[in-house]
Amino acid sequence: MYERIKGFRDFYPGAMAAHRQVVDTVESAVAGYGFREIATPALERTQLYVDKSGEEIVEELYSFTDHGGREVSLTPELTPTVARMVVERHQELSKPIKWYSTRPFWRYEEPQQGRFREFYQTNVDIFGSDAPESDAEILAVAADALTDCGLDADDFEFRVSHRDILGGVLRSMDADVDVPAAIRAVDKSEKIERAAYHDLLVDAGLDLAQAQSFADLLDAGDLDAVVEFAGTDEVAAAVENLREVLAAAEDFGARRYCTLSLDTARGLDYYTGVVFECFDSTGEVGRAVFGGGRYDDLIESFGGQPTPAVGFAVGVMNSTLPLLLQRAGVWPEEAVSTDYYVLSVGDTRPVAAEVARDLRARGNVVEADVAGRSFGAQMGYADSINAETVVIVGERDLENGEVTVKDMESGDQTAVPLAEFPGERDRPTYDDYA
Amino acid sequence: MYERIKGFRDFYPGAMAAHRQVVDTVESAVAGYGFREIATPALERTQLYVDKSGEEIVEELYSFTDHGGREVSLTPELTPTVARMVVERHQELSKPIKWYSTRPFWRYEEPQQGRFREFYQTNVDIFGSDAPESDAEILAVAADALTDCGLDADDFEFRVSHRDILGGVLRSMDADVDVPAAIRAVDKSEKIERAAYHDLLVDAGLDLAQAQSFADLLDAGDLDAVVEFAGTDEVAAAVENLREVLAAAEDFGARRYCTLSLDTARGLDYYTGVVFECFDSTGEVGRAVFGGGRYDDLIESFGGQPTPAVGFAVGVMNSTLPLLLQRAGVWPEEAVSTDYYVLSVGDTRPVAAEVARDLRARGNVVEADVAGRSFGAQMGYADSINAETVVIVGERDLENGEVTVKDMESGDQTAVPLAEFPGERDRPTYDDYA
Repeated sequence: MYERIKGFRDFYPGAMAAHRQVVDTVESAVAGYGFREIATPALERTQLYVDKSGEEIVEELYSFTDHGGREVSLTPELTPTVARMVVERHQELSKPIKWYSTRPFWRYEEPQQGRFREFYQTNVDIFGSDAPESDAEILAVAADALTDCGLDADDFEFRVSHRDILGGVLRSMDADVDVPAAIRAVDKSEKIERAAYHDLLVDAGLDLAQAQSFADLLDAGDLDAVVEFAGTDEVAAAVENLREVLAAAEDFGARRYCTLSLDTARGLDYYTGVVFECFDSTGEVGRAVFGGGRYDDLIESFGGQPTPAVGFAVGVMNSTLPLLLQRAGVWPEEAVSTDYYVLSVGDTRPVAAEVARDLRARGNVVEADVAGRSFGAQMGYADSINAETVVIVGERDLENGEVTVKDMESGDQTAVPLAEFPGERDRPTYDDYA
Repeated sequence: MYERIKGFRDFYPGAMAAHRQVVDTVESAVAGYGFREIATPALERTQLYVDKSGEEIVEELYSFTDHGGREVSLTPELTPTVARMVVERHQELSKPIKWYSTRPFWRYEEPQQGRFREFYQTNVDIFGSDAPESDAEILAVAADALTDCGLDADDFEFRVSHRDILGGVLRSMDADVDVPAAIRAVDKSEKIERAAYHDLLVDAGLDLAQAQSFADLLDAGDLDAVVEFAGTDEVAAAVENLREVLAAAEDFGARRYCTLSLDTARGLDYYTGVVFECFDSTGEVGRAVFGGGRYDDLIESFGGQPTPAVGFAVGVMNSTLPLLLQRAGVWPEEAVSTDYYVLSVGDTRPVAAEVARDLRARGNVVEADVAGRSFGAQMGYADSINAETVVIVGERDLENGEVTVKDMESGDQTAVPLAEFPGERDRPTYDDYA
């Protein structure tokens, strides 16, 4: 027997039905805001990732040399690819550019719960606007995607912060501080002891007293105090921007899901403005469900015109969102559903086939026998696919111009004139004829 | 500027909208027959393909050694993966197993029109039935997928044949013939000169007279003559099976798309029964659009129980189906569509946002300003996204409790009381208020 590769997953129909429902719900919410679907390659040149993240990224990549001698990698994330696409057609694309897509990505990391080597994400981005409304729309569409899945304000929170508050406060302090290192320390602060957090800040260049007052300032989350502490235009502007984004989020219906959380940093160095992370309000899902934010410098770093950008990526399929939906009790049933099974016994295939085609043309999922099986075997199969209604097309019934319509929940059945089934109805059931 | 890899394609929103519509149409037809969606890994062990197709397949694979020392390949086709999945859960899966999926595959081949190194397919398969109804259902669902895309019986034909007719006739002849080689010769016969075709058959072990009579027999397509020529039970049974499949296809509404075509062979060695290829009836798309057939031995060859199987794979996205739909003039418009643009001018953002949210909740695609732009810039953007209706929320209108509803096709506009927009309507337009 052949084995699936470690960290990869097969999705069989029952589980897939639930995942499909969630992905469709997320994509439908996103499409409702006018984000447009794109599709992108599974392979890119390895250089794209090395230039962005350094040589050490290669250890996490599925990278290789193709038969034409190209150094290529399975895409570990979408951002470099969309950056490449925006740069390539920058002139002809009308701004703002609003794109989404759902697809797998690949990273050679140690698998754990909710983390596979092949993982699926829906990516949602706006390019070409630095207005607070664009950050707020990202928060709003993310919130709508979750509430459309059945979550409510008690289930999740968006912890919102601003990179230039963190960086600006650090730069305002009298110290030779490594800002990215300090921000990475903030990013880890929730997961480590207070003393270890302070140590990381000291490693980044603060003295211990500075580290303590910086950490306390972020904890307090008082924006006026932050402005006063820093005393710089940079921090004042960042606070002003954060307030504008939250005000727009209020208008867009998303403010109620947002918590000010200055020690939310997002690990990735490329964020430049408002950042957020979605958390399970109960804490049962222990790490961030997903996150996003503003990354205004990235397109330029890929050789494009300066282009502001803001977005998020949510893990779907074998990732974190299903964990939150399961915790909240709104995960769809992992089962296939079938509107009709058309059961043919005896020499009735032409009529059974016509009934099946008629029901399909009205938008129903309809199975019929393709294995030449007995009445009992067909009834057992109809049950196994959760058929709601079985239409029995038997020789004796047909002599009377009838079929039998059986409700599979109750087991009730009744004879119905063939001419009246399905008749005018798009989705006729036993109850329509009882 | 970074470059896309040769043979790979980016799908921007306009083109993607057309492709998405076609993929959704195909998948909807397939789902209507009770085929169930699955999702499968992008990587498999290289051995899976070597065992099936021999070492030479590696030249066509994107294969490499991963960081854990595994020999792996980007999947060049779905069949070995679904065979692996069927084998793994054979006991618990109720038969027949009916699966579909749409996803990319990868082959290192020379790109040409309609053939990329990354190409997308919808695969549709039935496992666990050898009844003629299962072959016929595959023909029927393939035909429905095409007619649902807007094609009709004048646009395409399914050339139908049977592997055991070809093989059986060859085995009935008084010659030491290499049957797979002869079948590959048949597969090439349409594309090469008659003499060259005869030569290939001679290479496979026939003498010239045998080669000519074999070729003539296939051309004539007279099933009774074939049975008589061979005089074996094997060929008689194959002809009977083909007739049963076509009779079931008649009941299922698909016979009208089928042409008996004994020199349709399908190149792949693993087919075992009825095979078919879809061709453009006008011949403008010069090669097979897609094909499929029965492959009863494959699951067993992957270590499973003997399991009959039949299916097809149709190339979507950057493949052959779009070429046929374009030739027939039923390719969807390559453009994004937008139901509403809600244009906010002045201090009206809260009301504009509420209007936008209200329209979205009714299932519409609604964009609103996220870039703080002027009336004119917003109107230009609304036009660029093909907005059907623009709802203008201006300060003066709002003082009168009104918004302006503008039809973007005609340019007509009218003031509407805010309380009546959208009112009871799911999709209000200018005409509703004019």
